[in-house]
Amino acid sequence: MTAFRFETLATDGAARRGRLHTAHGTAETPAFMPVGTAATVKAMTPDAVRSTGAQIVLGNTYHLMLRPGADRVERLGGLHRFMDWPGPILTDSGGFQIMSLAARRKLTEAGVTFQSHIDGSKHELTPERSMEIQRQLDATITMVLDECTKWPIEEAEAESSMRLSMRWAERSKAAFVERDGYALFGIVQGSTFPDQRLESAAALTAIGFDGYAVGGLAVGEGQTATFNALDVTVPALPGDKPRYLMGVGRPDDIVGAVARGVDMFDCVMPTRSGRTGKAFTRRGEINIRNARHADDPRPLDETCDCPACARFSRAYLHHLFKAEEILGPVLLTWHNLRHYQALMADIRAAIEARTFAAFQAAFAAEQAKGDIEPV
Amino acid sequence: MTAFRFETLATDGAARRGRLHTAHGTAETPAFMPVGTAATVKAMTPDAVRSTGAQIVLGNTYHLMLRPGADRVERLGGLHRFMDWPGPILTDSGGFQIMSLAARRKLTEAGVTFQSHIDGSKHELTPERSMEIQRQLDATITMVLDECTKWPIEEAEAESSMRLSMRWAERSKAAFVERDGYALFGIVQGSTFPDQRLESAAALTAIGFDGYAVGGLAVGEGQTATFNALDVTVPALPGDKPRYLMGVGRPDDIVGAVARGVDMFDCVMPTRSGRTGKAFTRRGEINIRNARHADDPRPLDETCDCPACARFSRAYLHHLFKAEEILGPVLLTWHNLRHYQALMADIRAAIEARTFAAFQAAFAAEQAKGDIEPV
Repeated sequence: MTAFRFETLATDGAARRGRLHTAHGTAETPAFMPVGTAATVKAMTPDAVRSTGAQIVLGNTYHLMLRPGADRVERLGGLHRFMDWPGPILTDSGGFQIMSLAARRKLTEAGVTFQSHIDGSKHELTPERSMEIQRQLDATITMVLDECTKWPIEEAEAESSMRLSMRWAERSKAAFVERDGYALFGIVQGSTFPDQRLESAAALTAIGFDGYAVGGLAVGEGQTATFNALDVTVPALPGDKPRYLMGVGRPDDIVGAVARGVDMFDCVMPTRSGRTGKAFTRRGEINIRNARHADDPRPLDETCDCPACARFSRAYLHHLFKAEEILGPVLLTWHNLRHYQALMADIRAAIEARTFAAFQAAFAAEQAKGDIEPV
Repeated sequence: MTAFRFETLATDGAARRGRLHTAHGTAETPAFMPVGTAATVKAMTPDAVRSTGAQIVLGNTYHLMLRPGADRVERLGGLHRFMDWPGPILTDSGGFQIMSLAARRKLTEAGVTFQSHIDGSKHELTPERSMEIQRQLDATITMVLDECTKWPIEEAEAESSMRLSMRWAERSKAAFVERDGYALFGIVQGSTFPDQRLESAAALTAIGFDGYAVGGLAVGEGQTATFNALDVTVPALPGDKPRYLMGVGRPDDIVGAVARGVDMFDCVMPTRSGRTGKAFTRRGEINIRNARHADDPRPLDETCDCPACARFSRAYLHHLFKAEEILGPVLLTWHNLRHYQALMADIRAAIEARTFAAFQAAFAAEQAKGDIEPV
């Protein structure tokens, strides 16, 4: 069994081309992790997910602990076997979802108690319990339990929340059962306050983790503020460990974050947008439900090699959404995930070639063109 | 371009092992045609449909003429290109769906006028218009426009309806544009009245079609009455043409109909059931939503080689349906279609080996066992 390890293969400015080595295989970075909330990347078979180029996926502790339950997943051989994803899986700690429950949860020093959104049943999540659940799920990468603050937030409130998250990080580390090829990541908090981000990064580094996530961003603060937070935070993190920007983002968010030294990403955007008919293309986003596509024999994106683009017309995809056919969400999710993975492959190639700045400029120019003219 | 042709490869009693030769390739018979109502076999990619062994699929004229419209499909290169199904496609005539609109339609000698279930717009379907629409769709096999009667029905009403359908069959034949490798099928009506079935079969044979369907069955009359109608009708049809039992059915309906000389089938059962969590197995039907499956590590059907059975547990499939994940309907549809195609392959092999009677007995015995015991 291999040790968990992050290998840097090339750099270009702050951007890094790397490789994660885990108990469940490797993942090339910068990496985008499709979100498999309830043990499935929505609307996709695992084969389809793999075919897009994804090597690592994300699962949500909050959803899985409630349904089907961590005990059950453990009895069934863990998440990899359960959902037929033998590759690496990262699970979040449950904190983010629970914080968004607002009225349905109560926070103390010990942890958080909350009511299930499914059946109203009461549950408690502590750092120790989160570690236990993620072990039962057999997560390759476990995330510490943290409090993800809302935005905007008062400085003092952000600070006390961040310090609670740091105490929870320490308890998470103490409770985490080390296994060869498995990893525990800390999460930097501190909202958009540079001093707090630095304090948090230093606190986590002192505890020592296998990787470092930047949390509490992309919650409404805007791309400039996100990037500013990265500019402060990333240089304060150990250079030999992977960096993961949680819940981000749109393609241009990802490109900008890679330029700032981020290695890993996850976001529901490609899957959620796909289910509602929104497609990402090299020339920006389009809504396939729009009537302008009804007679268009051209593919969504002629530069894309996904089944939706290689096999079908915009007219057909438009028809599927108008007729509310399941194949519509399936094909657009597939396209969006392939679009994201093709972007990550291009990013990795540009860093290897040390042409990332040129790539970044060309990417922005292409996005700015907007969709092709109607037929 | 090949002529449309039905080749008989072997027989066993009344059962026939054959092959359809068409402009869009061949299909082995007895054949089950998955239903692709709105230019998609619901929840399946064309690759997935092909992987189950299906060689010919069905489209619904009624749905397609309303959305996306026959003109549009024609402009986009026909149904084969539109839905990425290069193989043979059979389209029904629209009659069956329109009859089920009841209050929203009006029948005359000329044809039927009806209101769209989508937007209330008015449409007319005549035998001539149905032929034109199916030509625009580029159907490999076109069905005549008929009136599909409800059941039960008075003898006199069934008779006048059947005779109207025969006049429409003659008009359909006159309006059908012959093309190499394309076919027009007549439809025998006459409900459960033997004399009417014989009259209808004789009338169609006199007109002359490339194949003969038996319509108006599986509408509530029960399996015995269906089989009785086949016992009367099939021997009255030309031996050198394919026979198609429309809208049938469950696996045991199919096995019994093959024994009576039927070559082709279609039914929404495997796809519709799959979307609601019902699975067909060699040991009968099961509902994966049932709590007894929640912890079951075994596959749906250990004799099945579909992805749902080869890759996942009953527990996982149960979870997907409880969590209302799209992958649940996708996987159960896939399983059911594979189950049907595997059944057809076994049927074909048994006829070739002249062991169809033994196969039929073994099939019934296995079905009667019921599902495996809970773990």
